[in-house]
Amino acid sequence: MKGVILGIQPEASIVDISHEVKPFDIMDGAYTIAQAYRYFPRRTVHVIVVDPGVGTERRPILAEAAGQFFIAPDNGVLSMIWDREATHKVRAIANELLFLPARSRTFHGRDIFAPSGAHLAKGVAPARFGPLVKDYTQLMVLKPQRTARRVWTGAVLKIDRFGNLITNFHIDEFPDMATRPFEIAVGFEHTHRLVSTFAEAASDELVAIVGSSGYLEVAFNQSPAAKRLGCGTGAPVELTFLK
Amino acid sequence: MKGVILGIQPEASIVDISHEVKPFDIMDGAYTIAQAYRYFPRRTVHVIVVDPGVGTERRPILAEAAGQFFIAPDNGVLSMIWDREATHKVRAIANELLFLPARSRTFHGRDIFAPSGAHLAKGVAPARFGPLVKDYTQLMVLKPQRTARRVWTGAVLKIDRFGNLITNFHIDEFPDMATRPFEIAVGFEHTHRLVSTFAEAASDELVAIVGSSGYLEVAFNQSPAAKRLGCGTGAPVELTFLK
Amino acid sequence: MKGVILGIQPEASIVDISHEVKPFDIMDGAYTIAQAYRYFPRRTVHVIVVDPGVGTERRPILAEAAGQFFIAPDNGVLSMIWDREATHKVRAIANELLFLPARSRTFHGRDIFAPSGAHLAKGVAPARFGPLVKDYTQLMVLKPQRTARRVWTGAVLKIDRFGNLITNFHIDEFPDMATRPFEIAVGFEHTHRLVSTFAEAASDELVAIVGSSGYLEVAFNQSPAAKRLGCGTGAPVELTFLK
Repeated sequence: MKGVILGIQPEASIVDISHEVKPFDIMDGAYTIAQAYRYFPRRTVHVIVVDPGVGTERRPILAEAAGQFFIAPDNGVLSMIWDREATHKVRAIANELLFLPARSRTFHGRDIFAPSGAHLAKGVAPARFGPLVKDYTQLMVLKPQRTARRVWTGAVLKIDRFGNLITNFHIDEFPDMATRPFEIAVGFEHTHRLVSTFAEAASDELVAIVGSSGYLEVAFNQSPAAKRLGCGTGAPVELTFLK
Repeated sequence: MKGVILGIQPEASIVDISHEVKPFDIMDGAYTIAQAYRYFPRRTVHVIVVDPGVGTERRPILAEAAGQFFIAPDNGVLSMIWDREATHKVRAIANELLFLPARSRTFHGRDIFAPSGAHLAKGVAPARFGPLVKDYTQLMVLKPQRTARRVWTGAVLKIDRFGNLITNFHIDEFPDMATRPFEIAVGFEHTHRLVSTFAEAASDELVAIVGSSGYLEVAFNQSPAAKRLGCGTGAPVELTFLK
Repeated sequence: MKGVILGIQPEASIVDISHEVKPFDIMDGAYTIAQAYRYFPRRTVHVIVVDPGVGTERRPILAEAAGQFFIAPDNGVLSMIWDREATHKVRAIANELLFLPARSRTFHGRDIFAPSGAHLAKGVAPARFGPLVKDYTQLMVLKPQRTARRVWTGAVLKIDRFGNLITNFHIDEFPDMATRPFEIAVGFEHTHRLVSTFAEAASDELVAIVGSSGYLEVAFNQSPAAKRLGCGTGAPVELTFLK
């Protein structure tokens, strides 16, 4: 992919956001781009290749949001960006002149997404990629759902490299957590405590903490919660306000 | 290595092709560069450090093929490039003025390959690195061998991160596979089916698929064949045309 | 972090030294930067984020040594640089104008270290970051201690990706090893042999070797010593001169 990009736009400054998205895991990919994009400069082109449906009819899309560009398969991997950026535009990428001439059916990252991103970075106008569309995929599972009067059910979006469980509860949507008593349950464990730093947690104490991108994490201090709770990506997380 | 390169040629645009080549595995290294180089721009300098013999008498080489440069130990890691690029030139790198002044015996990647690559990228002529040679290493094991009238025996070159088995059968050398009935056997399993996309495979169906670089892969859809078949790099792969 | 850096200094050439430092392991981080920095050009800005105390009172520091810059938490991760570079200057980073305006308590790498590094690379003078300090953290454990007349006790600093045990014995401090008979003991094993290349080791022979940065390694040829000896980072290493 990088060879293709530099062949089209030699001035590109290429950054790897992550090579550790779990294979085939759209939820992990959605979180990974959602927590990173706001820290990049305007007009950055993000190329997202979490693409279990490669070679099928799922189309490639080009989104504009927050002054940046996103090229991805239309499989919901940008859903958290739709949620957070009310004004966004989405195009179906259809202009084959902007792809590699010979295309495989198993690596569109290299053959379609990378060359499209490079042409965009070089200055090709978004409108030349394809028409605006409204029927792009939005995954509802990426937002917590209210399941009782004081209860929301969400999910683990990602296990980070420290074994912390990153959930889909964003503090901006649950600002009450700082002041109202609550319980967060994951696996067979729960916690009532929101800490500001990992160092505040007692040894072997499960705590909640607002992660660096605003998503709530469930964690032990310097010990992998995922392993100790036996939880992985997709595990349910229940938030109950106790009064 | 990157510090050394930027010290010599600050304008270098450095790309990591892979940090996941299996330690000491020349076959894995050979496949990794073979599937990538054609996608890079002309005059790219590839530096390949898969070097189990570091510190012994194995020499460093500089190859020119397909309008690009390759710096590597002379241990066969470029064999698949010799196969695919009929016109190539190989030099033994001998000019110590182009190395770091102090050299270790365990990290020639940093002390010899990286500075040589940086000088080449900066414009030093290939001829200044050393004389043309003909006796460079070619590993025959990297090509399938005909073992009976309708039978070829090859090998697994690499397990990719999805657990797919990438073989050394290149579709350009076996174009009949698309039309003649065949059997591919790996471990205790076999398949008769060549699919175009992973999504075509039934659940639990082992299939063959032409990978994104033309090499045949043996795979399940979204499930690691390497683990389920108990096969690793080097495992034999037998292709039989049934008529 | 890279998005933040490029937003401040778009001309930055960003290199990843390692993403494989063991989580929370200051010793591993200390070794990783110590073995790399001398190979980078003058005025390189190294940003080191091995930061188990993030969000607590530990301060960020900016060090100048060997013509380069180092931005890190003041937790001892630069101790091996203090040892090797007699003339170094250290400042407490305090100028919040050089940080991101909104700061998390769990990811100072992104919010403090990265923007500080980018401003420094862009030309902001070191003195503008904060005052010189003398009371920065130095970890004594990172140097071998003399424990008897002919005995030094050190430690394993890092397990490399080949499973070799990298120790904190630097050949410059123990030049006698090349000529005096010695024993190095790790776990329940020991060796008397210093080789120049891995290939000199017999099959199943444990040997000592001077690594590419001058630190002594204990290793088998093409086989992981860490696994076979059951040793990890921090395991004691004893060097005895036999006469």
